[in-house]
Amino acid sequence: MNILIASDSFKHSLSSYEAGKNLAGGIKKILQEAEMIVSPIADGGEGTVQALTDAIGGKQIETQVHDPLMRKITASFGILGDGVTAVIEMASASGIELLTPEERNPLHTTTYGTGELIKAALDHNCSRIILGIGGSATIDAGAGLLAALGAKFPGSGKETILPTGGNLNQIHTIDINELDHRLQSTHLRIGTDVDNPLTGERGAAAVYGPQKGAGPQDVKKLEQNLNKYADLLNGFTGKQFHTLPGAGSAGGLAISLMAFANAGMESGFDLIAEETGLEARVKHADLVITGEGKIDRQTAYGKTACGVARLAIKYNKPLIAVAGTVGNGTDELYNMGFDLILPIIESPVNLETSLREAPNLLENTGMRIGRILKLNDRFMKKDSSS
Amino acid sequence: MNILIASDSFKHSLSSYEAGKNLAGGIKKILQEAEMIVSPIADGGEGTVQALTDAIGGKQIETQVHDPLMRKITASFGILGDGVTAVIEMASASGIELLTPEERNPLHTTTYGTGELIKAALDHNCSRIILGIGGSATIDAGAGLLAALGAKFPGSGKETILPTGGNLNQIHTIDINELDHRLQSTHLRIGTDVDNPLTGERGAAAVYGPQKGAGPQDVKKLEQNLNKYADLLNGFTGKQFHTLPGAGSAGGLAISLMAFANAGMESGFDLIAEETGLEARVKHADLVITGEGKIDRQTAYGKTACGVARLAIKYNKPLIAVAGTVGNGTDELYNMGFDLILPIIESPVNLETSLREAPNLLENTGMRIGRILKLNDRFMKKDSSS
Repeated sequence: MNILIASDSFKHSLSSYEAGKNLAGGIKKILQEAEMIVSPIADGGEGTVQALTDAIGGKQIETQVHDPLMRKITASFGILGDGVTAVIEMASASGIELLTPEERNPLHTTTYGTGELIKAALDHNCSRIILGIGGSATIDAGAGLLAALGAKFPGSGKETILPTGGNLNQIHTIDINELDHRLQSTHLRIGTDVDNPLTGERGAAAVYGPQKGAGPQDVKKLEQNLNKYADLLNGFTGKQFHTLPGAGSAGGLAISLMAFANAGMESGFDLIAEETGLEARVKHADLVITGEGKIDRQTAYGKTACGVARLAIKYNKPLIAVAGTVGNGTDELYNMGFDLILPIIESPVNLETSLREAPNLLENTGMRIGRILKLNDRFMKKDSSS
Repeated sequence: MNILIASDSFKHSLSSYEAGKNLAGGIKKILQEAEMIVSPIADGGEGTVQALTDAIGGKQIETQVHDPLMRKITASFGILGDGVTAVIEMASASGIELLTPEERNPLHTTTYGTGELIKAALDHNCSRIILGIGGSATIDAGAGLLAALGAKFPGSGKETILPTGGNLNQIHTIDINELDHRLQSTHLRIGTDVDNPLTGERGAAAVYGPQKGAGPQDVKKLEQNLNKYADLLNGFTGKQFHTLPGAGSAGGLAISLMAFANAGMESGFDLIAEETGLEARVKHADLVITGEGKIDRQTAYGKTACGVARLAIKYNKPLIAVAGTVGNGTDELYNMGFDLILPIIESPVNLETSLREAPNLLENTGMRIGRILKLNDRFMKKDSSS
């Protein structure tokens, strides 16, 4: 029996690979003969670098960059085993979790540090860059990122602007004479898990502004600024970014790259599934196991576990999901094609303990899955003898 | 597929029958065609009356009795559908949970109220009595019970003693002239789940005295009194109760009945299994499901869930157990022959919530069991087509 395990990471607890390894270890204790493949997976957000370096091999590089408020911090990115593909999470340099709740305000934050990570990847001779853009603290449409890569943003006078969400409206023009020329020969794949447009009711300011610390007036200002900057890019490139699906991800970060670099935006899950050969692995499996911290009604709209599930269903493979919390609304998932959703919790216990115990709980759940498959053998033997 | 569900009760939450019905309801939602039998079960302790009246039919009768400290309370017992079999839990009249922790002291408590329950059953023309004796507050060797049924216990002077654990040594002789004559034509089956002897290191005073509120000096006194009373019974009947296995149960309650009535002691689980026809049901089943509030290392020494498991294993039936808490040491149970132990908890949650949610959690677990069986079908179809 070939068992494929492709679990999401368990936030604050285990990476995708660790979760999968614990499940696999449990199954192996019961079914010594089972062949297991642990396939790390992510959706372009947190855990993307870890999942890809775990899946493909590679290393993580630390480097000095600037955080969303331009303070020096150490961030990291991955270089995969081929030596030419970098994997960057924008959240490592420009993420919301780098700021205290009081510091969060997208009028004042910049993606400058993410540009520095891209520059570091170029300095390491990478010619492909996979950029995951979940969890940003910014709504600067990626202008700050361009600045770190050499673009200049003159205002109406002599000053040069360091772009933030709040000053995009002061940018008079964009000077790309000194923009890093290596970008032209670098293939940038940008992975996102949302399809919001840049502006409007479902745009970066209206939907994500409040959770990044913007008040109602700030949201209006940010919306105006995004419109103005997108107009500016339109004038330069003829490209229309205002309504592009996904352009609202990470405060519009992708559009500056799509305007001036060899960059495309796609589903983070599909990107990582492709890079790791997930679909071929599903095709080859007799059973697919996925997992997620919480599985409920929302899971059907989520990307990672549900992405794995869709592939399993596409190839008609038995599908088991495991979760730290099994919530309401799993009927939808069963209707969709999930065969079994197993909670990993074994007793009344608080969240903190369950996070600490997650490795054991997953291994025990793996053992239970092994026993479920063995139970299956008992029924089969009975069936063939009767 | 014939599925037998015989779960222990879930303390502070669900009776055996309720637990089984919730599990069965969940399975039925997934496998409409499954035939299910819910077989209530108990071990002679708490839940015995409920389990037997649920299993066989019958009614519960309320009656006024005296609690372990001789205060009036309302207690109840069952009369089964045959109209002649009474089921009594001694804890209903003489249980430890009727007293506050401060009130607990086996020097001062009596089984008088349990005798009143037996008298009430005789008054209802019952000719068979099943007496479950778990959870007592008493160590009076059942002398108090005999007093309620008409026996007299003269002291060395003129006084008549109302027996408690503390005054058994003052009993000079036993006058059974007025002992209820109906006892002679009544078959009393006493069900217990322990095999401790009456006296000695593993006896009623040494082992159970402390948890019933006795201090070290009290335990010594109780031990002496039990010895003295057993000697007295020996003089009357020629029977030797000191070392009889099980005689230490419920503070020695059974020995007074075995001395003067048509009474025998046996395993509470076996008794209830026999009364409910459990073994035949196991034989007929394709799958046996049991359950317990907590399943861990101790379960192997427990009676109810493990009793069901032993029958399933005896007839080589697939066996699934469910539990509110799955603790350490389940390896032993798997080695013994359990096929699968499923926790019912679905998320980090406190005990109070899990008790309140137990009906839903068991139904959901039933649904999961249904899905596990359906998953088996998927593998079987694949197997027969390849």
